Amino acid sequence: MPETPSPSFVRIDAARLHGMMDAVSRFGGGGDGSMTRLALSAQDGAARDWLGGWFRGNGFTPQVDRIGNQFGRVDLAGGNAPTIMVGSHLDSQPNGGRFDGALGVVAACEAIRAVRASLAERGLRSACNFVVANWTNEEGARFQPSLLGSSVFAGQAELAWALERRDGAGIAVDEALAAIGYAGTDTVPVPDAFIELHIEGGPVLEREGKRFGAFTRYWGATKYRLAFLGRQAHTGPTPMAERRDALLAAAYLIADLKDMVADYGLDLHTSVGRLEVFPNSPNTVPSEAVLFIELRSGAPAILEEAEARLRTFIAAAAARAGVESEVRAIDLRPAGAMHPGLVRLAERAGARNDAPPRPLDTIGGHDAISLAAVCPAIVLAVPCRDGVMHHPTEFATPEDQAFGTQVLADMLMLLATEGLAALGTGGEVR
Amino acid sequence: MPETPSPSFVRIDAARLHGMMDAVSRFGGGGDGSMTRLALSAQDGAARDWLGGWFRGNGFTPQVDRIGNQFGRVDLAGGNAPTIMVGSHLDSQPNGGRFDGALGVVAACEAIRAVRASLAERGLRSACNFVVANWTNEEGARFQPSLLGSSVFAGQAELAWALERRDGAGIAVDEALAAIGYAGTDTVPVPDAFIELHIEGGPVLEREGKRFGAFTRYWGATKYRLAFLGRQAHTGPTPMAERRDALLAAAYLIADLKDMVADYGLDLHTSVGRLEVFPNSPNTVPSEAVLFIELRSGAPAILEEAEARLRTFIAAAAARAGVESEVRAIDLRPAGAMHPGLVRLAERAGARNDAPPRPLDTIGGHDAISLAAVCPAIVLAVPCRDGVMHHPTEFATPEDQAFGTQVLADMLMLLATEGLAALGTGGEVR
Repeated sequence: MPETPSPSFVRIDAARLHGMMDAVSRFGGGGDGSMTRLALSAQDGAARDWLGGWFRGNGFTPQVDRIGNQFGRVDLAGGNAPTIMVGSHLDSQPNGGRFDGALGVVAACEAIRAVRASLAERGLRSACNFVVANWTNEEGARFQPSLLGSSVFAGQAELAWALERRDGAGIAVDEALAAIGYAGTDTVPVPDAFIELHIEGGPVLEREGKRFGAFTRYWGATKYRLAFLGRQAHTGPTPMAERRDALLAAAYLIADLKDMVADYGLDLHTSVGRLEVFPNSPNTVPSEAVLFIELRSGAPAILEEAEARLRTFIAAAAARAGVESEVRAIDLRPAGAMHPGLVRLAERAGARNDAPPRPLDTIGGHDAISLAAVCPAIVLAVPCRDGVMHHPTEFATPEDQAFGTQVLADMLMLLATEGLAALGTGGEVR
Repeated sequence: MPETPSPSFVRIDAARLHGMMDAVSRFGGGGDGSMTRLALSAQDGAARDWLGGWFRGNGFTPQVDRIGNQFGRVDLAGGNAPTIMVGSHLDSQPNGGRFDGALGVVAACEAIRAVRASLAERGLRSACNFVVANWTNEEGARFQPSLLGSSVFAGQAELAWALERRDGAGIAVDEALAAIGYAGTDTVPVPDAFIELHIEGGPVLEREGKRFGAFTRYWGATKYRLAFLGRQAHTGPTPMAERRDALLAAAYLIADLKDMVADYGLDLHTSVGRLEVFPNSPNTVPSEAVLFIELRSGAPAILEEAEARLRTFIAAAAARAGVESEVRAIDLRPAGAMHPGLVRLAERAGARNDAPPRPLDTIGGHDAISLAAVCPAIVLAVPCRDGVMHHPTEFATPEDQAFGTQVLADMLMLLATEGLAALGTGGEVR
């Protein structure tokens, strides 16, 4: 924490933050540290009600849009001023942890409250308005796809389509929204910037002893659904030379994809998470093997090169096993960079707290990635123990929670005092 | 066919043989050459009734044991004389062919009939009695395991257990036997030798232009059910170096098993026909991969060495992928040799027909392998087109069918005239 008050001094209230974290953790939390607060479940509804109550009790105006995204608006600068949105999500994985998402929502509340108090204390007027966001179904655990609420908000998914997504029990999103009273009607405009605080969900900060990070790049993904097509035969008498073993081709390819990674340092991830084998009978040479392949990288050029090499590997594996191959689906998600103005703002706020942000790549996805398509966006990160996320042992220390919230508040204070100029020239912002 | 009658001259009636093949093919046969005569189905029942009718019409005494094996006995030598059993099975694969099994049963009928006629014509008494056998559920298509009837007969499977095997619709063997009237009560003793004529089910005879083969070895199989145990993780952010990918280990092992084959010429077959992946989700590093591994060889020493190398491969693949391994089941089926006395008898009979038998290995299994555990046994082979079996295009020419039946009849005639001495010294027989 800064020892010397600066012109934009703001201090968050750690006790208040921790109290809010304790309060929200009651909704779906288990005694072992676990959290099961599936999107639009009764637990999620209760957590939303608690958040709405907090909004009303603290002078934030509650709003809910048609996909159930929940907002709390603080109008400090008038209707024509820029709006800075801050938040994350309250839904969790089944048997997940308490910090993934919830910290970002609670920190947004406390940071905005602290900025408002600090401005009021010193009789300053804000250059921006602020909005807390709690996005619907970030996790994709109950309804697929993930990032559903933020994707609809950013225009990347159709509202009608999103409302029809169904969970494993056949319940649609619109039914689930109605059941907990969050089928909203408010129209909330795209903000001028979106900032999300999140636990890292990886081991880098902890390992390097860093307190604070900024996700400056988001990784792209190239996903292939690929079939090798061989010939069904008896594993007994069929001579080895006459077998056309689709699973053997799959094995060659899986090994090649893993080997390729060594050529790209830490910049390429490859995986085959799902493999379907037909007929999958112990004494039958497999006639078909369907692989679900992922290539992921933060660098578009690496992703492109890896895909070209994948194509070569497919052909080689097919030839070696004497089978055919068939690409059945390709899904391309481009890599990209977070807004440089927000990265600089994070650097300025980090420097104030003697913690320049460690640049990180976000690979798994965050609501801020959805928002990045329509406004400047960034994800700030605090360490989590052993890099664990989506598990009851997920943990961020109270000190780290408070530290990240303080840096977030400093960023908001810079925006409140400098306006969008804090993000660079106007032309750069969008 | 021999030009000069020998002391043991016998000539089979090819037209009669073909007529019987046509007759039995009506039960479950399709216009495209296909055959669907699942064990103990209505079609199988009709074929058995036809065979029983043939037995009665030709002076063979029908018998049915408790697992439904159907026999037709011809007593030519009195109750204390040796008994030679000859046959195969009338059940088929779904959408299989007409010759697999059926030829061996029909050829047995015709060969024994011809021997009896030839002996009678010349006023000779037989040194042996003869029995046709039609074994229950050889194919293992409707009920598992295969070779069910012959295994019970040879004491390798418990009768009560076998009767409780159920098909995909939940019907037990004993119910199916009762439904077609083949829940027999006869006790049929183990014979002094068992001879089976069968289509080769492989390409060797056709390729080499040979008319006749004898399976002189049966391959053993070493079957492992093996699990690799890794750690479930997200395929996105989890650093490659920290992944414990069970499927990757499986891929290494599958490739190693295939590579190993090159060191053993044609004497080793390896396969992974079934692979179960958990959780098998596109964006999750697999935590478990269960492989169904088979090693097959006709040489016990090779099988043993291959198993030792498999153990080494498992350890290496696990280490390379950073996972654990767990052998969950091992099933060892020893390799073995067919009875040398019967092989010599096949050579003598083949020589009479200018066709010394091509020695073959049987890999997939035959009822004669079950019998080999309790009496001298052998499988004789005639060519089949393109080596195809278990498919509607399965085909053996009428000439080859007749030729194989003739050699079989010559073997039986040698036994009829020489008794068990034809198999070598008494001490060698058992």
